[in-house]
Amino acid sequence: MKVALIGSGNVATVLGRKIKAAHHTIAMVYSRQLEKAEVLAGELEATAVDTLEAVETAQADICIIAVADTALQVIAPTLRLSKGIAVHTSGASDMDILRGTAPGYGVLYPLQSIRRETAQVPVTPFLTEGSSPAVLDTITGFARTLSPLVDHASAADRLKLHLAAVFTSNFSNHLYTLAADYCKAQKLDFDLLLPLIQETAARLSHYPPSQTQTGPAIRNDQGTIAKHLALLHNNTDAAEVYRVLTESISRYYGLRLDC
Amino acid sequence: MKVALIGSGNVATVLGRKIKAAHHTIAMVYSRQLEKAEVLAGELEATAVDTLEAVETAQADICIIAVADTALQVIAPTLRLSKGIAVHTSGASDMDILRGTAPGYGVLYPLQSIRRETAQVPVTPFLTEGSSPAVLDTITGFARTLSPLVDHASAADRLKLHLAAVFTSNFSNHLYTLAADYCKAQKLDFDLLLPLIQETAARLSHYPPSQTQTGPAIRNDQGTIAKHLALLHNNTDAAEVYRVLTESISRYYGLRLDC
Repeated sequence: MKVALIGSGNVATVLGRKIKAAHHTIAMVYSRQLEKAEVLAGELEATAVDTLEAVETAQADICIIAVADTALQVIAPTLRLSKGIAVHTSGASDMDILRGTAPGYGVLYPLQSIRRETAQVPVTPFLTEGSSPAVLDTITGFARTLSPLVDHASAADRLKLHLAAVFTSNFSNHLYTLAADYCKAQKLDFDLLLPLIQETAARLSHYPPSQTQTGPAIRNDQGTIAKHLALLHNNTDAAEVYRVLTESISRYYGLRLDC
Repeated sequence: MKVALIGSGNVATVLGRKIKAAHHTIAMVYSRQLEKAEVLAGELEATAVDTLEAVETAQADICIIAVADTALQVIAPTLRLSKGIAVHTSGASDMDILRGTAPGYGVLYPLQSIRRETAQVPVTPFLTEGSSPAVLDTITGFARTLSPLVDHASAADRLKLHLAAVFTSNFSNHLYTLAADYCKAQKLDFDLLLPLIQETAARLSHYPPSQTQTGPAIRNDQGTIAKHLALLHNNTDAAEVYRVLTESISRYYGLRLDC
């Protein structure tokens, strides 16, 4: 497929690499800042442009708009492609924001945390949506050249999976941050926790997480909970996170706690 | 070393396997329930016993008490070993609970979530403590035969690392549970989130988590946050976890949120 790529950030860069590796032709890379487009276009052997009119001349089969939701709201009303399909990569934006941009339009949402610095691009599930069954087929077929994990998802389901991803990834990452900062403040080696973190994540391939819950909350171990909260007496934010998650675990497993 | 093992649960089982694999001799496995001791002793080619007096006859170099904190409080006052070292494996218990049980005593705390079902025993950091420098050396040397990651930690530091582990493992696992339940209720495939979860954990080997935070909270994306909270209107528990973690992320990165 002949691809035009709008964006030069993390998602555009990593998608661009996957697309090139899958032997598609990337005709153009657009960024509002030409020098950013040039860096990515150089890597992808594409032409760098900084106007949407130039993207329109590419006559690509698929135009991928891989930009922040706010930028998508600026670009969608002005992009006018006379052929092909326009897709965005947003978890929380409606497909219909692209109505009128191209003969076909849809969504190609990578359900993954994407950073251009990572040498190894992780396995990335794609959730697809299309303005017609034929367009959906084309987007889905294209996605399958990039990843073995491709699923159609309505806008409603995409938002729900995005919500679940916030819990599993964004919130977990923040817990890692609170723990890393605590270790740093206490002059303890956060790296000692890495095997545990990775085991907790890896185990999900074999057990549902509700079957592998451990820790003082599920044991209703009030002594340890009190010791932990005493350690956090100067850290109101971490203490509140501790309390709310401990209470949530207790409620989930039907215990009663007063902490 | 000649080892006696008190306990037959997850930690005793997995430690026993590591100890056997490191070519130590496991003389005895104790459990209050003889049949449980027999199962583990059979696997470890040891003698199964159900009295602490029998453990005392083993004359082991190191007696490992791998039981729940509550059972430790019952066993410690009655165990009387005439030789060797007694250690417990608890993150939140003081070393001194073992004073008087053996000539030397200490702690051998595995900082890992341990389940006997897992075919592959994960890398396990051990935190050690000893009643004297010589005892600490012996425990640490023994631990190094089980794992490349061994560190001395005072009781205070062990409790702090245990607290950090609650954040990174217990709380993350509960977030996975909330997300898995939500996906199940919405008839969505939770497995689609596994690559994201594993990438979020794996990235910690390369970046501090505060540098890789993504999601609506750090972007101050109030529109998406409102959409997510609307989806959770019937799930007060998950909604409260969402709110508290979103507010915590916002405060951490210096934003202001009214959600």
